[in-house]
Amino acid sequence: MKRTILVKVQNHSGMLSKVSGLFSRRAFNIHSLAVGVTEDPEISCMTIVVDGDNDMVEQVEKQLAKLIGVLRVKTLEPGEFISKELVFIKVPADARTRSEIVDIVKIFGARIVEVSQNSLILEYADTTEKIAELEYMLSPYGHCEIVRTGAIAIEKDVRPNGTL
Amino acid sequence: MKRTILVKVQNHSGMLSKVSGLFSRRAFNIHSLAVGVTEDPEISCMTIVVDGDNDMVEQVEKQLAKLIGVLRVKTLEPGEFISKELVFIKVPADARTRSEIVDIVKIFGARIVEVSQNSLILEYADTTEKIAELEYMLSPYGHCEIVRTGAIAIEKDVRPNGTL
Repeated sequence: MKRTILVKVQNHSGMLSKVSGLFSRRAFNIHSLAVGVTEDPEISCMTIVVDGDNDMVEQVEKQLAKLIGVLRVKTLEPGEFISKELVFIKVPADARTRSEIVDIVKIFGARIVEVSQNSLILEYADTTEKIAELEYMLSPYGHCEIVRTGAIAIEKDVRPNGTL
Repeated sequence: MKRTILVKVQNHSGMLSKVSGLFSRRAFNIHSLAVGVTEDPEISCMTIVVDGDNDMVEQVEKQLAKLIGVLRVKTLEPGEFISKELVFIKVPADARTRSEIVDIVKIFGARIVEVSQNSLILEYADTTEKIAELEYMLSPYGHCEIVRTGAIAIEKDVRPNGTL
């Protein structure tokens, strides 16, 4: 099962190496990892998506919390957070196929950010599942080049009655 | 000066640790790092933004290329690529301030993905500079919570005359 872990860390050059080293040494399977500074330039937030069961996630949490420089570790429960990632897709496109691709772009709410005679570059921010659907819809047009960020996540506010 | 390096690597669990370890050991200053699988599930692409001069970037390129599992290293020249990152911003908002914030959201072309009585969560994909502008415009509304992916980059197609 995929689980999403938010890790707040001090913004030091060695932190990414420490955290990724921990996963590597213990052979925990990282599905994606995204890291960026937060509203406080001294603190970075890592969003780590792992494949694993509850035992494995508990192990990861404990090991992460032990690392010097880790300020907070939280595994997010389904429904209590929003998660998306950003992807650039360069898809082969000529005068004949361009309008078909533009139709797909509109349906998904993606954006065209660059055009050349032989290709289009699309920008799309959505869930990993929706991005996979867009990739699938573009696959008949030839070999696409794909660069993606890895997912980030943010917690929703808890409603006063405790629901989300 | 900020430079953007694309690194294609084999999609092994230890690669992120190896690459971030290299930067950490040599005290190269990473501004951001984003990693995700490409169109080939065996290959991941890292977009690394570093602060440094040409000598430092050349050193980084050489060291990266030596690592086992690194398939391609390319430092992108200004103008020959598109770069953006994705950010979630949770901004305090009540009935009185909500419409003002919605106006800012519209001007930037951001999107509201969640609303509660006390906050809005925005999603915004753009350059690091534009994201900083949006943060600045939202700062009067109180302490924002920010989670970001780090920048990804994709090369533009070269035009037949060699220009971009």
